[in-house]
Amino acid sequence: MSSETLYEHPLTEQVRVYLRLEYLLEQINQSVSLTDDGQWRVFFRSLFDLVEILEQVQVKGDLAKDLEKQRTKLETWLDVPNVDTEQLKALLLESRQIQQALLQSARLGQTLREDKFLSSIRQRFSIPGGTCSFDLPSLHHWLNLPLAHKQSNAERWKQTLAPLEDALSFWLRLTRGSATMQPCAVVNGFYQQDVESASLLRIKIATDYNAFPLVSGHKSRFAIRFMPFDESLPVPDMMALSLAVC
Amino acid sequence: MSSETLYEHPLTEQVRVYLRLEYLLEQINQSVSLTDDGQWRVFFRSLFDLVEILEQVQVKGDLAKDLEKQRTKLETWLDVPNVDTEQLKALLLESRQIQQALLQSARLGQTLREDKFLSSIRQRFSIPGGTCSFDLPSLHHWLNLPLAHKQSNAERWKQTLAPLEDALSFWLRLTRGSATMQPCAVVNGFYQQDVESASLLRIKIATDYNAFPLVSGHKSRFAIRFMPFDESLPVPDMMALSLAVC
Repeated sequence: MSSETLYEHPLTEQVRVYLRLEYLLEQINQSVSLTDDGQWRVFFRSLFDLVEILEQVQVKGDLAKDLEKQRTKLETWLDVPNVDTEQLKALLLESRQIQQALLQSARLGQTLREDKFLSSIRQRFSIPGGTCSFDLPSLHHWLNLPLAHKQSNAERWKQTLAPLEDALSFWLRLTRGSATMQPCAVVNGFYQQDVESASLLRIKIATDYNAFPLVSGHKSRFAIRFMPFDESLPVPDMMALSLAVC
Repeated sequence: MSSETLYEHPLTEQVRVYLRLEYLLEQINQSVSLTDDGQWRVFFRSLFDLVEILEQVQVKGDLAKDLEKQRTKLETWLDVPNVDTEQLKALLLESRQIQQALLQSARLGQTLREDKFLSSIRQRFSIPGGTCSFDLPSLHHWLNLPLAHKQSNAERWKQTLAPLEDALSFWLRLTRGSATMQPCAVVNGFYQQDVESASLLRIKIATDYNAFPLVSGHKSRFAIRFMPFDESLPVPDMMALSLAVC
């Protein structure tokens, strides 16, 4: 059985930001225990990347609006026969609570931006090799503190992102769940489709095909060109893969 | 027994670069096995940081010259009674061989700069969260290849840095070994000293002192100001620590 690779491609600017934030939050979660030596690098870098995105984009309003749109769609199911209305109502309630917590939270990333220690080390992370002990003696001191102390700091920093993470993962979970993977035949490495207000494209392809997708598109149309990873081998004329338009 | 933290501070521009490169090479070595999920991030980022430094600084010539200077110093020991001349001669030979391998190697970092895959993903690493699957589908494909395949690639990229790594670690090992740690009393969080053509300052301080060093200086003089990590606590009036001027 050959392995498959899942690619996701945003079809709107908002979803592009959401996927980036989710990706960084995943890295933060994977490294917050700081038990391996390299983890603090991944932790701080993901944290600072995330803060930088939150400085550039007003995520809170967009995400709150998208949660609302998602609820409007969900509510149309309430009148459909044989739908589990109890479960649906629970989802709608959860969405409202998550949205409220998001809107009531402080400016996203603000606590991290104002943290004295974090802001004193942040700039150096963009310099090549800029986190040596002579660049950042205060970080070097922190790294030599007991693990429990560091973990408690890291957990506290991470916790400030909880309202964002809850809202983001709720919206993305329901969006991903809104469409199932469909078999799709790709001829000559090219595929395109017209769609209706789509947010997210998901492509699952056997790694053995030696092909990765380059997607261009927006919410009403997309095109995928499959490129050979090993350029000395061609992309197969015909490929069977799975596609979901969410 | 309280833990101690070792700080190293370069006293010349060359040594500053050497320490940065050593730091990045250590990260590459620690992550080259790619067995943990976060390791590929650390691996590629360290590799690209290293390539960037090698683009900016002509390390090869400096390092070859410094190896030669080191040998000149070592040779003065040949006439000193009770010195193990056999061991000394072996060191001098090793130094010459390492220097020759360094000088005969291709332009440092050139192979990595010219690698098609590496150069196709490098730029995205400087964008916050810029290594998502939709940013770099080719990297995403590579990440889903069998571990042995990825490890063999990573090992090959790392191997191109061997002449640099050998020369750098030889020079730094002997430089660090050229001076032993001396006890040193620091009064009111400040210490300064005149020295003679020093390269590297090494400071070992108990983490419990809640102090980290800010060093300013050059090869003939340095000053250290110790700052409190937790600013609500003072730096002790008197601190006992260890210092080596290499």
